[in-house]
Amino acid sequence: MSPHPDQGRPLVTLTTDFGTADGYVGAIKGRLLSLAPPVRICDISHQVAPRDVVQGAWCLKRAAPRFPDGAIHLAVIDPGVGSARAGLVVVTERFLLVGPDNGVLSLAAREGGLRQIVTIGENPPHWQKSASFDGLTLFAPVAARLAMGDAPEMLGQPAEAMEQLPQKNPRHAGDEILGEVLFFDRFGNAVTNITVEDLAGKSAGRVMLGAGEEAQWATHYAAMAKNPGCPAAIWNSDGHLELALFGGSLKNDRRIRAGERVAVSLRPAAG
Amino acid sequence: MSPHPDQGRPLVTLTTDFGTADGYVGAIKGRLLSLAPPVRICDISHQVAPRDVVQGAWCLKRAAPRFPDGAIHLAVIDPGVGSARAGLVVVTERFLLVGPDNGVLSLAAREGGLRQIVTIGENPPHWQKSASFDGLTLFAPVAARLAMGDAPEMLGQPAEAMEQLPQKNPRHAGDEILGEVLFFDRFGNAVTNITVEDLAGKSAGRVMLGAGEEAQWATHYAAMAKNPGCPAAIWNSDGHLELALFGGSLKNDRRIRAGERVAVSLRPAAG
Amino acid sequence: MSPHPDQGRPLVTLTTDFGTADGYVGAIKGRLLSLAPPVRICDISHQVAPRDVVQGAWCLKRAAPRFPDGAIHLAVIDPGVGSARAGLVVVTERFLLVGPDNGVLSLAAREGGLRQIVTIGENPPHWQKSASFDGLTLFAPVAARLAMGDAPEMLGQPAEAMEQLPQKNPRHAGDEILGEVLFFDRFGNAVTNITVEDLAGKSAGRVMLGAGEEAQWATHYAAMAKNPGCPAAIWNSDGHLELALFGGSLKNDRRIRAGERVAVSLRPAAG
Repeated sequence: MSPHPDQGRPLVTLTTDFGTADGYVGAIKGRLLSLAPPVRICDISHQVAPRDVVQGAWCLKRAAPRFPDGAIHLAVIDPGVGSARAGLVVVTERFLLVGPDNGVLSLAAREGGLRQIVTIGENPPHWQKSASFDGLTLFAPVAARLAMGDAPEMLGQPAEAMEQLPQKNPRHAGDEILGEVLFFDRFGNAVTNITVEDLAGKSAGRVMLGAGEEAQWATHYAAMAKNPGCPAAIWNSDGHLELALFGGSLKNDRRIRAGERVAVSLRPAAG
Repeated sequence: MSPHPDQGRPLVTLTTDFGTADGYVGAIKGRLLSLAPPVRICDISHQVAPRDVVQGAWCLKRAAPRFPDGAIHLAVIDPGVGSARAGLVVVTERFLLVGPDNGVLSLAAREGGLRQIVTIGENPPHWQKSASFDGLTLFAPVAARLAMGDAPEMLGQPAEAMEQLPQKNPRHAGDEILGEVLFFDRFGNAVTNITVEDLAGKSAGRVMLGAGEEAQWATHYAAMAKNPGCPAAIWNSDGHLELALFGGSLKNDRRIRAGERVAVSLRPAAG
Repeated sequence: MSPHPDQGRPLVTLTTDFGTADGYVGAIKGRLLSLAPPVRICDISHQVAPRDVVQGAWCLKRAAPRFPDGAIHLAVIDPGVGSARAGLVVVTERFLLVGPDNGVLSLAAREGGLRQIVTIGENPPHWQKSASFDGLTLFAPVAARLAMGDAPEMLGQPAEAMEQLPQKNPRHAGDEILGEVLFFDRFGNAVTNITVEDLAGKSAGRVMLGAGEEAQWATHYAAMAKNPGCPAAIWNSDGHLELALFGGSLKNDRRIRAGERVAVSLRPAAG
C-alpha cells in the first residue's frame, strides 16, 4: 500500500463534528493545502453531532473503505482535545487513518484490516498539541506529512493497542437473536447491531421491536407502502438489519431510542 | 457534446438528500474515485430535505446549466429506492444527468435541452440495484462509467419518456396572471411559478399575495428597507417572480405555504 | 504575490450564507468552473447564518490565512445585494478577497496585511450587478478573472477605504481588562474580544463572566471535567480568551448572549 499511488495526487478525506460556519474546517483545509500542495481534499462530513465519537466512527466505517487504496482519512471528533489522550496514525491494509485515540478510528481500522498503530510523537518540527484545536496544529500537519510520502513510523512510536468503542454484540437466546438499535440515520431509520452473519446459515423470521411491535420484512423501502403505519425490516447495504417507517421517521414517530431491544426469530434455512 | 472535454478531467456533481453525517455521501464519493480515478467531484448539495424530489429538482435546475459542457450531474433523492422505478441516464445538449426516474431530473433535463433518455440496464458488470442504497451500488458506478468515456447507450436501453414533476403553470384570467408559491428558499423568500415570459410583452402591475396583501415592486432586496413590514416583489436571477420581506422571512413571518395564490395584474407595456 | 503560483492551479475558496439546498452555491461553482476551467474550488462554509456578516467575517478571518499564498477567497454574505453598495477586490500581502463592501472582508483583510482596495467596475464584459444574486452574476465572474491572471486593478477603480465591522476592543480599568463575548461557536463556547496581547506582559488572574460567575483557568477542554458545572477559560488557537462548559454548551446552559461582559484581573507576570 502506498499513500500516493502513481496514478494520482494524494487524497485526504475529512470527517469532523465542527460544522463549517466557525471556519475551523476551512483552517484545516488551508493548512493541508499549504503543507502538501498536491493534495486532493474530499469532505466526508462536518455534520457529525458535536462530540459524538460513535456517530463519527460509523460515518468513517461506512465511507473510508469505498475510497481508492492509499487514501488518508483524517477524523477529528475530539472531546478530549488538549488532554493526555494520544494522537494516532493507524495503518490498515488499504488506507491510513489519522485522529485522536478515543475510538473514532476503531471501526474503520477493523474494516480496513488493521496492520500498525503509531502514537504521534511530541517533538516534530511541523506540529504541536494545542489546548483547543489539535485538528489544525497536530492532525492536519501529520496528514500532510503522510500525503507527502513520510512513512507512518517516522511520525511517532509504535503502539500495541488503540481505544475501542464499547462493543455491543447481539446474542443468541434459544431460537432468537437479541440485539439493539445502534443509532438512527438522517431519515429516522434505525440501524441495529444484528447483521446477516449473525443468522449463521438460518433464515430470519419474525422481527420484534421493543416491547412488542412487529416489523414486516420488506425487500426495499418503497415496498412498505402496503403497510404504511407498520415498521418494516430490511438488510441494508452494510449487511445490518435496519428498521424503517415508509414515508416517515421511526425515530420521531415512535418512542424508541438508541439501545432499544430488537429480536429476530430464527428458522431453518429454506433449501 | 463530450463527457470529458480535452481541457480537463471529467466532472461529476452530486445532489442528494442524504446529509453527510451518516457516511452515505462519503461512500458514494469513494466509489466514484475508485472506479473513475481522474474524476473531479463537485458537491451541489446534500441538504435537500429528506425525500423532497421537488426541492432536489429545482436545486439541480438552478445549478446544472452553469457548469461546463459535458459535466455529469448525479442526483440521488430516491424515496422509491429498491422498487421497480427505473434508473436513468439523460442526455441533454449540454450535460448528462444520472438518477432515479421520479421527476428529480426532469427540470434540469428541459433546461439543458433533452436529447436522449436511457433506462439503466439490469445486468452490467459494475453495478446492481439494492434494497436501500442505489446511490452507491447503481448510480455512482454508472456515473463513473460515463466519466471514463462510455457512451450512454452502452449502459442500458433507450426510453421514450421520463417521469415529470406535477406541472404548475400560471394561467391568464382577464388582465391578471394567476400563479402560486412553488417553494421557499433558505432566506424564507417565496419563489413563484410566474416568470418574465408570462408577461407576454406587457408590464407587471399590482402583485397580490394570498387573500389580499399587496407586495411592492422593488429593484433589489435592500430597497425594501423603505417599507419594512411590507412584502416586496422582484424578478429573481432565474426570471421567476420572487416575494420577500426585508430582513425577515416571508415563510416564518406570514402564514403562507407552498401553493399560496399569487396574482399579477397586467398593464400595456410602457413605451 | 501571484494569484496562480507555478506549482498549482488557481485556488478559489467559498464562504456564503446560502446553504446548499437551493442550488445557489452549485450555480456559483458551475460559473467558476465554466469561466476558469483550471480552477480548484474549496468550500470554507455555506452554513453562515443568513445575513450574518459578522459570523461570516470571523469565519473568513480564521480560515483564509491558513491557505497557500495567492489563494482567492470569495465571500458572499450580502444582505444589501442590488443596492448601491460596492463590490470589492481586496489585495493583501498573502491573498485576494472578493465580495461585497459591507465588512465581511474586513477582518481577513487586516489579518492578511491590507495592500490595495479595488471597487469592481460597472461595465466589464463578463459580469453585471443583479437584483438578487450578485454571487452568480458579479462576484463569481470577478473571481474567475483573477484566477485566470487578470490584475486586480484591471477590474475596477482603486478605493481609499472599505467598510469595517463595528470595532469592539476591550479596555483596561485599573487592574482589570474589561471585554465582552463576541459570538458562540458550534459547541456553544463563547469567544471573547480579549486576546493574549491585551495582557501587555502581565499574567491573567481571575476571570469573571457577566454579573458575577467565576470561570476557572484550564489548560484544555477535557481538564474541565474536574469542575463540571463551572465555566472554564482557555486561550484558543487564535489567541482569544474562550469560555466553555465541559461536555455542555455555555450558550444553551447559561443565560448569556453575545455582548455579555467578561472581566480578567491582571497580576504581575511570574518570573
